[in-house]
Amino acid sequence: MSQPISVAVLGASGRMGATTVQALEAAPDLEVVARLDARDDVAEVATAGAQVAVDFTVPGATEANVHALIDAGVHVVVGTTGWDEGSLGRVREHLAEAPGRGVLVAPNFALGAVLAMRFAAQAARWFESVEVVELHHPDKADAPSGTARHTAAGIAAARRDAGLGPVPDATSQQLDGARGAEVDGIRVHAVRLRGLVAHEEILLGNAGEQLTIRHDSFDRTSFMPGVLHAVREVGRRPGLTVGLEHYLDLG
Amino acid sequence: MSQPISVAVLGASGRMGATTVQALEAAPDLEVVARLDARDDVAEVATAGAQVAVDFTVPGATEANVHALIDAGVHVVVGTTGWDEGSLGRVREHLAEAPGRGVLVAPNFALGAVLAMRFAAQAARWFESVEVVELHHPDKADAPSGTARHTAAGIAAARRDAGLGPVPDATSQQLDGARGAEVDGIRVHAVRLRGLVAHEEILLGNAGEQLTIRHDSFDRTSFMPGVLHAVREVGRRPGLTVGLEHYLDLG
Amino acid sequence: MSQPISVAVLGASGRMGATTVQALEAAPDLEVVARLDARDDVAEVATAGAQVAVDFTVPGATEANVHALIDAGVHVVVGTTGWDEGSLGRVREHLAEAPGRGVLVAPNFALGAVLAMRFAAQAARWFESVEVVELHHPDKADAPSGTARHTAAGIAAARRDAGLGPVPDATSQQLDGARGAEVDGIRVHAVRLRGLVAHEEILLGNAGEQLTIRHDSFDRTSFMPGVLHAVREVGRRPGLTVGLEHYLDLG
Amino acid sequence: MSQPISVAVLGASGRMGATTVQALEAAPDLEVVARLDARDDVAEVATAGAQVAVDFTVPGATEANVHALIDAGVHVVVGTTGWDEGSLGRVREHLAEAPGRGVLVAPNFALGAVLAMRFAAQAARWFESVEVVELHHPDKADAPSGTARHTAAGIAAARRDAGLGPVPDATSQQLDGARGAEVDGIRVHAVRLRGLVAHEEILLGNAGEQLTIRHDSFDRTSFMPGVLHAVREVGRRPGLTVGLEHYLDLG
Repeated sequence: MSQPISVAVLGASGRMGATTVQALEAAPDLEVVARLDARDDVAEVATAGAQVAVDFTVPGATEANVHALIDAGVHVVVGTTGWDEGSLGRVREHLAEAPGRGVLVAPNFALGAVLAMRFAAQAARWFESVEVVELHHPDKADAPSGTARHTAAGIAAARRDAGLGPVPDATSQQLDGARGAEVDGIRVHAVRLRGLVAHEEILLGNAGEQLTIRHDSFDRTSFMPGVLHAVREVGRRPGLTVGLEHYLDLG
Repeated sequence: MSQPISVAVLGASGRMGATTVQALEAAPDLEVVARLDARDDVAEVATAGAQVAVDFTVPGATEANVHALIDAGVHVVVGTTGWDEGSLGRVREHLAEAPGRGVLVAPNFALGAVLAMRFAAQAARWFESVEVVELHHPDKADAPSGTARHTAAGIAAARRDAGLGPVPDATSQQLDGARGAEVDGIRVHAVRLRGLVAHEEILLGNAGEQLTIRHDSFDRTSFMPGVLHAVREVGRRPGLTVGLEHYLDLG
Repeated sequence: MSQPISVAVLGASGRMGATTVQALEAAPDLEVVARLDARDDVAEVATAGAQVAVDFTVPGATEANVHALIDAGVHVVVGTTGWDEGSLGRVREHLAEAPGRGVLVAPNFALGAVLAMRFAAQAARWFESVEVVELHHPDKADAPSGTARHTAAGIAAARRDAGLGPVPDATSQQLDGARGAEVDGIRVHAVRLRGLVAHEEILLGNAGEQLTIRHDSFDRTSFMPGVLHAVREVGRRPGLTVGLEHYLDLG
Repeated sequence: MSQPISVAVLGASGRMGATTVQALEAAPDLEVVARLDARDDVAEVATAGAQVAVDFTVPGATEANVHALIDAGVHVVVGTTGWDEGSLGRVREHLAEAPGRGVLVAPNFALGAVLAMRFAAQAARWFESVEVVELHHPDKADAPSGTARHTAAGIAAARRDAGLGPVPDATSQQLDGARGAEVDGIRVHAVRLRGLVAHEEILLGNAGEQLTIRHDSFDRTSFMPGVLHAVREVGRRPGLTVGLEHYLDLG
């Protein structure tokens, strides 16, 4: 058997970081060589001999971490939120001068959620109607969820590219809010129900047929197959990649 | 075998009336003895010897039909819309003086829809959360559907009776409309999709569990078992009954 | 506020027992006065002054516990499996001599599961077709689940009572097992999928319409509202009751 | 606007053929120039000046039709069943000598069904568990459906390619048939329910998450967008293509 890949986890005592450490330890082809906290120096990653680093830290720290890791010759998988076009652009430039280094920034590591979004976008051009329903526990503060907005935006872009017009809707008399929110012209409905975790359903309709794509996320362990896959792949994918779907070879 | 029940259909050339005539003709224990149109005299029902009349006419005609039929000694099953507390009260008074006559006014004859509404109201007091999603073809003018509003009102009443407070919802940041419309404090979402007909889903949630009740109506034939059941029962149920659920002996 | 009900838990260190102790402690109107293990004497329940005992022990112990508790003047809620007609009959006889004592033996405390079974049986006589699909994690040893068999038996009984014949099925060419197992003439399908816990779906169909009743159980906490409800009710329901549904006043 | 594509329909008086003629006539960019029956000579297709022919005939006639149409210089879209490796091979050889001619043989023109199958195969390698449930009206003779078998075979191939082992299943005690039929190691369940038409659900599961892909076919019109798309594309796709998915540019 080949050498295991040595991995450092930044934010190792946070919820996602700790779950990641457990998952890495359970994988025979991966080895955790460093666990870093907010107070630790990123230089320890290189000292420990890590080939790949996983960053589950905080928006205020993640970009600086990534630049330091690139300089240290380490590939990086980033699950921390807060990245925008500006910060992504600076990483892209930095990587141009560091050939062979790979960085993945992924807003979602649940394979099912990533696939659902991708399939929804691929199917969108073939259907006259499409709507998104997301369902979460009732303690969630925002509606609709970021994943649902992102899904709707992807569907809207695919419809535009295919030259489709607006989704048909003859509603002329509406109780306020009944038809949901509009994201790029796509209707999105947010259900809140005790007992649920995070769920998304994309409904596509033509005369005589319906296609439904649904993802259910029951707990944090669902992110781990995606994280491990990213750790195994990032060294083979130089440059900046945004979104786990590009590592899934779907095309 | 006993004598078939003789039945008159008012509004026999309309869509629902014509489907009703077909369904009655296919039932060996029921016999169509009169088919009336807008221009026919209601007196023909009695002349033809009908024991039961089915009224699928128009809001402007149905109340007068029912009073004439009660006077003629005929039981009546009414599927026409437009009834309110006033018109129902007048029928109730009239029936008080016509003992033995039965009248059923039913907004919905789809057994599955009636059962779904009833089960939702029965289950409501046992769950912390509940929401309603209705799905229809995109040519529908109103949102949410009358059935969904009625379902939500029944759920809200059951929760009030059981002393339950408001459904939990921590949403503090919302894209306009994302959380649906509110009917008596219950969230109702309306999806519009090409290919669908009329569908309703009631979602109930507690910590650790979810109960879902869904009804799909694919076409008009779905109303016929309910109509035939009503025709067979109305003679045994004197007085005014509102809603087919009361004929289903649900215990 | 009135006095809390004092409760003893038998099998308090088992999984269900421990979860029950937690749930009771969180309820202001209920008080845990005794926690018993396999090695403890049932007499401690009376010594501790418990009005109600909850038995989550083992099939070999539960019947003797119940008889001892009846003698001690304690109402009993039983969640332990292994009861049959013989053991239930002996408890019924014992209670005939102990007026005012209540015993509930319930195979399932998930309110949603109990309601789903009850609604399925109520709806069954109104539909031509019905099938049951149960879905569980892939580590389950038996297929179909006990709940699904029980649901199918209830549906079959309701169809027989209503004089319905067999469910229509023109299958003449079948890959072995494709049409599922048969329980009292009702088809039951068992799906096994990593990530699932315990789920059941009852599908009922007529020409033009479908009614679906689904229950999802995500974890053990879903049993607690049912257990607490039983503890509160058992003192008001003398005699033997089998099945939580009889405590739900479903009309 | 460019010239409409001229189209011949073979089997024009059959159910699928007649629906196809209607759909073609409603499309402004397509023109029906010939409608052929069993007794008509295929040579009429060329005489009428058709660029594309659609074959919805019978298994005994379709292969000969295709060879005649290739010789006549007409592109062909085939929806007739009965094709096997032998007949497909003979068409492939014939087309090698007729450069520029395109033939599509498609077992299913419902875009949603084709996409569901494709997405299921793409997702399969990312999930530990997968099962297929198909649901049809109770007059269907075979179980499971051809589409479900085809779907399961595609999933099994994708799992093999990815080096996945068997789907986990600890069932040791089974009521005969409960776990469904096995198609290439994938469990397939067939539900039969009055009111349904043709439906398929693919369930994929990992620890903590589930992905569900469902297709509902309500009536024959659902095949028409796929047929029209094939008619528009076949002239641009020389050689033999098997399966509409290859015309969908799914990336």
